[in-house]
Amino acid sequence: MSLLSETCARIVRSDPAVAALTQQRLDLKTKPRRSLGRLEDLACRVAAIRGTPAPPLPAKAIVVMGADHGVADEGVSAYPQDVTREMLLNFATGGAAINVLARHAGARLVVVDMGVRAPLPPLPDMRVHRIGPGTANMALQPAMRREQAQAAIEVGIEMAAELVDDGVTLLGIGEMGIANTTAASALAAALLGAAPEVVTGRGTGIDDTGWHRKVEVIRRALEMHRPDPADGLDVLSKLGGFEIAGLVGVVLGAAAARVPVVLDGFITGAAALVAVHLVPAAADALIASHQSVEVGHRVILNALGVAPLFDFALRLGEGTGAALAMPMVDAALRVLHEMATFADAGVSDSGA
Amino acid sequence: MSLLSETCARIVRSDPAVAALTQQRLDLKTKPRRSLGRLEDLACRVAAIRGTPAPPLPAKAIVVMGADHGVADEGVSAYPQDVTREMLLNFATGGAAINVLARHAGARLVVVDMGVRAPLPPLPDMRVHRIGPGTANMALQPAMRREQAQAAIEVGIEMAAELVDDGVTLLGIGEMGIANTTAASALAAALLGAAPEVVTGRGTGIDDTGWHRKVEVIRRALEMHRPDPADGLDVLSKLGGFEIAGLVGVVLGAAAARVPVVLDGFITGAAALVAVHLVPAAADALIASHQSVEVGHRVILNALGVAPLFDFALRLGEGTGAALAMPMVDAALRVLHEMATFADAGVSDSGA
Repeated sequence: MSLLSETCARIVRSDPAVAALTQQRLDLKTKPRRSLGRLEDLACRVAAIRGTPAPPLPAKAIVVMGADHGVADEGVSAYPQDVTREMLLNFATGGAAINVLARHAGARLVVVDMGVRAPLPPLPDMRVHRIGPGTANMALQPAMRREQAQAAIEVGIEMAAELVDDGVTLLGIGEMGIANTTAASALAAALLGAAPEVVTGRGTGIDDTGWHRKVEVIRRALEMHRPDPADGLDVLSKLGGFEIAGLVGVVLGAAAARVPVVLDGFITGAAALVAVHLVPAAADALIASHQSVEVGHRVILNALGVAPLFDFALRLGEGTGAALAMPMVDAALRVLHEMATFADAGVSDSGA
Repeated sequence: MSLLSETCARIVRSDPAVAALTQQRLDLKTKPRRSLGRLEDLACRVAAIRGTPAPPLPAKAIVVMGADHGVADEGVSAYPQDVTREMLLNFATGGAAINVLARHAGARLVVVDMGVRAPLPPLPDMRVHRIGPGTANMALQPAMRREQAQAAIEVGIEMAAELVDDGVTLLGIGEMGIANTTAASALAAALLGAAPEVVTGRGTGIDDTGWHRKVEVIRRALEMHRPDPADGLDVLSKLGGFEIAGLVGVVLGAAAARVPVVLDGFITGAAALVAVHLVPAAADALIASHQSVEVGHRVILNALGVAPLFDFALRLGEGTGAALAMPMVDAALRVLHEMATFADAGVSDSGA
C-alpha cells in the first residue's frame, strides 16, 4: 500500500458533536449568545477538526512550495519564468511578503523547492524535493507523469507528518510558480466541469490579449489530454504543477493528522480541490482565509463548501492570506480559553 | 474658547500626497503592484493620517466607555440594566471578550465609567468620569443637558490627549451600555434623516415585539425633541448617551493629534457620525474594522465614507471588532517596513 493510499484511508470526517460542545462552552461566556459570530464558528471548527472541545492555542507553520511551469512558454504570465527562482531565494533570505506576514502570525515558514527550472544553490532555509526542472508545457504534452504526481503528493504528506511530529497544530499553505494560475484554472475547469473562461483570471496582471491566450491554452490542454474528472491523479498529472501536487499532499497529511489547514488563494484552493476529489472528508480540515480577486477562487471555495474570513482583494499568493488569517484563529481560541463565564464574573445572563 | 471648540479647530484633512508616497514605497517591494490590495490601502491610510510616509509600528490602546441609558425603562433591550455595571466590573477584572482581544492585539485597555446608574467601587483599572447616574429616558425628556454633552465630549478629548502624550499612535474605541443601540439608532436617524426602522436593529437580541417597541420609542423621541440635524451637540444631548458623547471626544481628540481611530460596531459608528457632523475632516482619521449585523451600521459606514475590513457577524461591541482589526494594521505597516525591494532582492520586476 502506498503512502498516498494509506494516508487517504486515515482521513475521517470531523465530529459535529465536538463542535457543539465547544459552542456550549462559548455560550457560558459573558456575552450574548453567538455575539462573536464567525469567531465562534472558527473556534468550533478548529475544535471539531482537532477532535477536542477546547483545543490549546496552535503551534503554527506555513508551507510554501515553489515550482516552474512549462506552460509559461505560452506567454500566460506578466512575469518572466526566472521570477519563480528569484522569489524562492527571496523567501530563503527573508525579504518577501510571506516572510513578514509569517513572522507577524508567529508561524514557522517552510520553503520547498518542488522543481524550479534551474536548481538553487544550497540554502539553510530551503527544503529541496525537486520532482523535475519544472513541468512540461500542458499545451503540448501532459505536465507530468502520473508517478511524478504521486511522488510530489507524497513529499507533501511527509512534510505535513514531519511538522505535526514537531508539534505543529495549525498549517497554512502557500505557493510560488510563474504561470501557476494557468495550471490552477485548468484543474478547476477539469474537476468542476467548468468552462475555462469561468475559472480563469488575470493572475499577477496580464492584459486582455494575455487573458484570451490563457483561456485558449487551457481549452486546448483540456481537449488534447481529456483528463478523467473521476481520477484526481490523472487530472493533476496532465495539468500540473509540482508545487500544487505537493500542497495536495500537505492537505491530505494534515487532514489525516486532524490538523486544520488554512488555505491561501486560488492556487492553494485548486490544490485543496484535488485533495478533496481524492478524499471528500479532507474538506472538513480546511479553513478558508480570504476571497481573492481571481475569478475562479469563489467557484473553488463554493465547491469546497468553505466561506472565506475576509476579502482584502489580495492576489499575491505565497501563503500571505493564510498568514493574515492565523491571528484570527488564535483570537477565536483565546476567547474560548480566557473569557470569564457568567457564573465566574457574577454577570446576569438573560439567555439572549 | 472651550476645549471642544479649540480641538475641533485643530482637525485638518489628511494629506493624499503622503498616501501616494507610501504607495510608491510599496510599489518597490517584491510583489506585483497592488497585489496586497486592502492591506496596502491600510498602510497608506495610516500614513496619511499620521502625516508621514513610513509610520512606525503603532503603540495601541483601546478606550471602552460605559454608561447607563434611561431609555432602558422602555423595555428596548434583552438584558437588565444592571448588566452595564456588571460588565464594567468584568472589564476591570479582565474576564470580558475585550480583555482577551485587547491582549491579543497588544493594546492597552482603558475602561471608563462615564455614568453607570450606581457608582462602582474604586478599582485600579477603572477610570471614573461620571457625567451622571445614567441618562434620562429620551422617550420622556432629553437624555442629557447640552452642558453635559459637552463635558462628556471633553472627557474623551482629554483621554485621547493623555494617551497620545503617553505615546499611543493607534486608538480603538468600544462601549458598554444596556439600551445604547436605541440611542445610536436615534442619533443615526436624526443626523442622517433616516426613518427609524431603517437604522434600528436587534441589539443584543430582542424579539419582534421588542423591535417594534424600540422603533416606536425612537420615533416618539424624535418627534418630541425635534433635534436640529445642523447642530450635532443638540442631537447628541437629546438622544444620548454619556459613553457615546465620551467617544465623540476620543474621536475628535485623536483626529486633532493625527492618530487613527479604529471603530468597532454600530454604537462607535454613531459616535464617529456625531464627531464628523461637528468636524467633517475628522472622517479622515477613521478606520472601519468590521461590518456588524446591526442593520444601521452599513448606513453609518456609508455616511462616514469608510469601508469595513471584515464581516464576522459580530454584535457584541466593547471594542471587540476594533481589537480584531488592530493586528491587520500592524501587518500592513510591517509589510511597508520589512519587505525587500526588487533591487534589494535581485528579483525581476515586470512592472505588472
